Amino acid sequence: MRLRRKPWAVAWLADHADLVITQDKAVSLKGQWQSIFAKEQPIHVEIGTGKGQFIIGMAKQYPETNFIGMEIQEGAVAVAARKADEDEDALPNLKFIYGDGAGVDTYFAAEEISKVFLNFSDPWPKTGHEKRRLTYASFLKSYQAVLPEAGELEFKTDNRGLFEYSLGSFANYGEAGARLKTDKLWLDMHNEDPANLETNVETEYEQKFKVKGPIYKFLGHFENK
Amino acid sequence: MRLRRKPWAVAWLADHADLVITQDKAVSLKGQWQSIFAKEQPIHVEIGTGKGQFIIGMAKQYPETNFIGMEIQEGAVAVAARKADEDEDALPNLKFIYGDGAGVDTYFAAEEISKVFLNFSDPWPKTGHEKRRLTYASFLKSYQAVLPEAGELEFKTDNRGLFEYSLGSFANYGEAGARLKTDKLWLDMHNEDPANLETNVETEYEQKFKVKGPIYKFLGHFENK
Repeated sequence: MRLRRKPWAVAWLADHADLVITQDKAVSLKGQWQSIFAKEQPIHVEIGTGKGQFIIGMAKQYPETNFIGMEIQEGAVAVAARKADEDEDALPNLKFIYGDGAGVDTYFAAEEISKVFLNFSDPWPKTGHEKRRLTYASFLKSYQAVLPEAGELEFKTDNRGLFEYSLGSFANYGEAGARLKTDKLWLDMHNEDPANLETNVETEYEQKFKVKGPIYKFLGHFENK
Repeated sequence: MRLRRKPWAVAWLADHADLVITQDKAVSLKGQWQSIFAKEQPIHVEIGTGKGQFIIGMAKQYPETNFIGMEIQEGAVAVAARKADEDEDALPNLKFIYGDGAGVDTYFAAEEISKVFLNFSDPWPKTGHEKRRLTYASFLKSYQAVLPEAGELEFKTDNRGLFEYSLGSFANYGEAGARLKTDKLWLDMHNEDPANLETNVETEYEQKFKVKGPIYKFLGHFENK
């Protein structure tokens, strides 16, 4: 998703530096993320948070969890954070990082976060771009580095090619004997499993595309030998 | 798939005991399956061969491979074998076993076969019947027992629930540190990847149901540590 340039974003982000953490500050917070939240409770991170509908919805639905939305596009993270800031609910359990998802283990210490969400990530369909996909093995390794034993990974997409690729990448993951075990798969999540839908928080993209074809979802957890 | 009783089947099968191997004879052939084929070449086995369209099509398409179709239903295996017997092509590379798929490692010795096919297997949708699904861990273990290192498993189904379950079972398989690695997935194989379709041999069921929704396919191989 590409957004038009937002002329107001630079100043707005500078004025809301407590809500939207810059890349440099994120690095300095490594190991100390609980200090910026109102309550010490598990931290869940969405990588590529876009305009924020998912992470804001999650923060509202799960006040006992701290959420961080990471986003590399300035315009998107500004839109997301402003939406959170203007929300009728105060959301002391939600922060954003304006930064690169590739850096997840430069921002977080081992076991600092409990769950990683990937939603409708860029499919990078060309074979030569495989390494840029957020479900490529090197990214999985970085997620495992910041998750505890049994830490969860949840992934939704409407992109069939990306999901096919990702399921293979998950199944074959084997960094130093570790595994990414499958807990549950949904191959058409908006037309099956009503219990899952009840708690599902939609992204902007999902809301728009769920009527055009299947939305795929993966839920799994890392295991060390 | 249940078939009506075929009154002719018993006598026909008795008359064609070289083509359709009984369970007892199959056990006695363990380690010596090459002896019943015209040529010594890799053996591929379909578990649950139904009325045989797939295995007959494969035997025609790949004369350099020996094929065995296993089927537990007398009526089905008789229909399949009679079709093969009456085919315009002689098929010296095709045999059938009238027997239980659960017994794959009682019929075959270690590394005796090179590839296992599962096509549109019974989904056994009730949770309590999980152990009967041909993609349940104990079955995977029996396939691995008769395959060489890197031996392949190929699985097609139109049943979403069974495919969701099976991908998890494949990804999580870990008998004695072994893995079932994913080589490729197709989440809608009749509407993607023309190269794959070119060599695809359809089952009766697939031919009928491919227009009603996606056909799923998994191709993987076993690895020992």
